[in-house]
Amino acid sequence: MNIGIVGLGLIGGSIGLKLQSLDHTVFGVTNNGLNNEKAKKRKLANIISEDYKVLQNCNLVILALPINDLVNPSPDLINAIPKKSIVTDVGSVKSPIIETWEKIHPLFIGSHPMAGNEKKGVEAGNEALFDNAKWVITPTSKTNKDSLKILSNLLKEMGCRVYFESPDIHDEAVAIISHLPIYLGSCLIETANCDNNQELLNLSRKLASTGFADTTRVGGGNPSLGLDLATHNRKNIINWLKIFKENIHAFEEIFENNNWNLLHEKLENSKKWRDDFCN
Amino acid sequence: MNIGIVGLGLIGGSIGLKLQSLDHTVFGVTNNGLNNEKAKKRKLANIISEDYKVLQNCNLVILALPINDLVNPSPDLINAIPKKSIVTDVGSVKSPIIETWEKIHPLFIGSHPMAGNEKKGVEAGNEALFDNAKWVITPTSKTNKDSLKILSNLLKEMGCRVYFESPDIHDEAVAIISHLPIYLGSCLIETANCDNNQELLNLSRKLASTGFADTTRVGGGNPSLGLDLATHNRKNIINWLKIFKENIHAFEEIFENNNWNLLHEKLENSKKWRDDFCN
Repeated sequence: MNIGIVGLGLIGGSIGLKLQSLDHTVFGVTNNGLNNEKAKKRKLANIISEDYKVLQNCNLVILALPINDLVNPSPDLINAIPKKSIVTDVGSVKSPIIETWEKIHPLFIGSHPMAGNEKKGVEAGNEALFDNAKWVITPTSKTNKDSLKILSNLLKEMGCRVYFESPDIHDEAVAIISHLPIYLGSCLIETANCDNNQELLNLSRKLASTGFADTTRVGGGNPSLGLDLATHNRKNIINWLKIFKENIHAFEEIFENNNWNLLHEKLENSKKWRDDFCN
Repeated sequence: MNIGIVGLGLIGGSIGLKLQSLDHTVFGVTNNGLNNEKAKKRKLANIISEDYKVLQNCNLVILALPINDLVNPSPDLINAIPKKSIVTDVGSVKSPIIETWEKIHPLFIGSHPMAGNEKKGVEAGNEALFDNAKWVITPTSKTNKDSLKILSNLLKEMGCRVYFESPDIHDEAVAIISHLPIYLGSCLIETANCDNNQELLNLSRKLASTGFADTTRVGGGNPSLGLDLATHNRKNIINWLKIFKENIHAFEEIFENNNWNLLHEKLENSKKWRDDFCN
């Protein structure tokens, strides 16, 4: 297939390398001259251009752009995508992107690869990123069945485990397991950084070890990403922050009332339940 | 020196191996015959016994026992410790242990090594565990100055970075950076495990990845440890849970009011502040 990739950062670049290894012809679009040069050096696609026109013969176009650029797409990009091409995106919130793109393009299908690491930019892509990765496709009643089949076969060819879910359920699930940890981690850092007592703060900084580091890793991550997810998945995050706060209140009551049997039960359950999420 | 270690699990066993490598003579006490055999096989101490009497010629005794056993020590142990021996412990909450032991032994000094891993038991100890580890000593007005000097020199000889802090400040700092993450992680697991909507729960379980796993690692840890810390550091944990909950409420208001500039500022601060704790 002739496959276009708009954006050759970690996700787009990794897709480009993988698809070339599978003998597809990949047309990549970068956002500026410096990235263009680097992407060419790393051979992230067969043809790499700053001009969206490079997409003109693509059967499938993958939009590997930040959520904001997906929700507010450039008119030049919209005009450059062939009408007969299948289009998908890789954004981590689906409903607002699908709402935008189903109006723009008849063969749009939202999707979300669950892969990543700390790296970003054109230097970050690697061919193995999607080996055995989970990739969620979020079709709607408007989704073209043939296009869906082609997309899902391509992702399987790339070595991904493909799941189908509604955009709404997807966005609620990622609010819980992926977005909530960001704001809770950030809140824990803010709590620990309290400077009412400088001696306490100095000691906390000295003694913090792997437990604190792991619990706050995503909370201390990329602020722009945390902001993007917040604005585009706001309702779900509000709902689940509320439920989390109610559950924290229950922990507080346990401590207040020395209800240690219940605490032990909760901790036993957490240990057991975590395996269902992390295995 | 002749050094006694009561308990040869991860911490006690590692101390035993390290001290032997420094040519001290180590007398280890295990709690049962099976562990005794294993500890002897692994040479965790020069002399290993199930009988506290083995401590009788020790200049220094290290109590490497669970917090509950430190707060409720066995009379046999108390009677077996030589009156002229320096005594320290390795418990992760200091005030209740010091309160107990300063009444029992004139040369008691509380301390807390900040080292560990997922392993436990007599199989777990390793000589390198304390290389460059932080070890907090928590003297009080009753602490014997000469004993304090001997203990701190020994810990430095073991390769540790030694800090001195009051027990109260220590317990408050670990409540924030070490104990709070346990209950917040547990609460996040409980929140995610909500089964009002089975389709959502199934998808959450499928999509949870490294972000969720890291944020909940200590929350899904050893339930007995989480319970011990809760009961012995209750007041501090209650105070800091309250502050955390107030901070979460501020996040909720940001989302309710679309106050995205403030959210971005908070996330920027978290990223910056985390480095002060995790470097």
